Amino acid sequence: MSSLLIGICGGTGSGKTTLANRIRESINQDALLISMDSYYKDNHDMDLSERKKINYDHPDAFDVDILKEQLKILKSGGVVQVPCYDFSTHLRTDETVTMESKKVIIVEGILLFAIPELLPLLDIKIYVDTDADVRILRRVSRDVKERGRSLDSVIKQYLTTVKPMHEAFIEPSKRLADVIVPEGGHNEVAYKMIISDILSRIKTL
Amino acid sequence: MSSLLIGICGGTGSGKTTLANRIRESINQDALLISMDSYYKDNHDMDLSERKKINYDHPDAFDVDILKEQLKILKSGGVVQVPCYDFSTHLRTDETVTMESKKVIIVEGILLFAIPELLPLLDIKIYVDTDADVRILRRVSRDVKERGRSLDSVIKQYLTTVKPMHEAFIEPSKRLADVIVPEGGHNEVAYKMIISDILSRIKTL
Repeated sequence: MSSLLIGICGGTGSGKTTLANRIRESINQDALLISMDSYYKDNHDMDLSERKKINYDHPDAFDVDILKEQLKILKSGGVVQVPCYDFSTHLRTDETVTMESKKVIIVEGILLFAIPELLPLLDIKIYVDTDADVRILRRVSRDVKERGRSLDSVIKQYLTTVKPMHEAFIEPSKRLADVIVPEGGHNEVAYKMIISDILSRIKTL
Repeated sequence: MSSLLIGICGGTGSGKTTLANRIRESINQDALLISMDSYYKDNHDMDLSERKKINYDHPDAFDVDILKEQLKILKSGGVVQVPCYDFSTHLRTDETVTMESKKVIIVEGILLFAIPELLPLLDIKIYVDTDADVRILRRVSRDVKERGRSLDSVIKQYLTTVKPMHEAFIEPSKRLADVIVPEGGHNEVAYKMIISDILSRIKTL
């Protein structure tokens, strides 16, 4: 019997991680949450200055083969070693996290629906849609307050890569979703609808 | 105990009526479907040429007071006389249709979310989002093949009122929805999700 694989996609600051976390917590011991961010490519062959130049908002920055392979294994009930990624060095670490399959596997990431090979694996595709101004304000708050970055560096990164990549890859991937959730994390009606559906579907798993 | 009121909105040809019908059929004896089109204003005081000039794609064309009143009565378990509208004469007829409240009341219409007074009554707001080119092709087919209208008259009406009103009132009302369903009528994942949610909610009604 295969697990239910739920993909949650949306731009930076859209609320997709909040929604993914709420779903995982609600389904509790039957759910597993995987972040696409764990699957950034390992670039040990480059030095730090080269790695800093990589466009991490482009689909090519991800190790799609491993992500696809691990999602397939989890979907069919197996166990995987999820890679760990260090954002400060832009390197995959030597550690991995052991994840055992559950009835519900949630995978979330900004570029999830922009990678065509992943789409056939996803049973439910949810796109969290939040206005760009609200999203950038959340990102600015998070990066400046929680991650100690300067306002100027956040603005520069947003305008040079985050925004153009959003418009080129993320926004167009919205049309591939099964349902679009406006204002993701705190939309109670949509949240309840998703939970009802998951509980109804896993009854037979 | 109050009924569950579900609003389904979306542009002409979006598939909202197909989705509304499918939900009603699936819930069967516990569901009632109301079309907002039944609530066009009665304009007996105008002659036909004046009535033909009315912009029927504008929120002002609807008798919001009666619609709101009847939705409230149905929601609290009552019975209403739904007005009948004759599209060929642009007049309300003398007949009415008796409708008794059910556990699930579905109301569908292009301008449903563009009328602020109706929004607090709706427990679930679903917007069916379909590309404009697909929508106009469906409308052309329907109006020319099923309603015997000329292609030129359909195109003229679309460009002079349907399209500008869609952009002014319908498209902006999408942001008020709880969930957005791409390609309404035949989106199986979204349909299943909506049905699961309704069945879960009416268990306690």
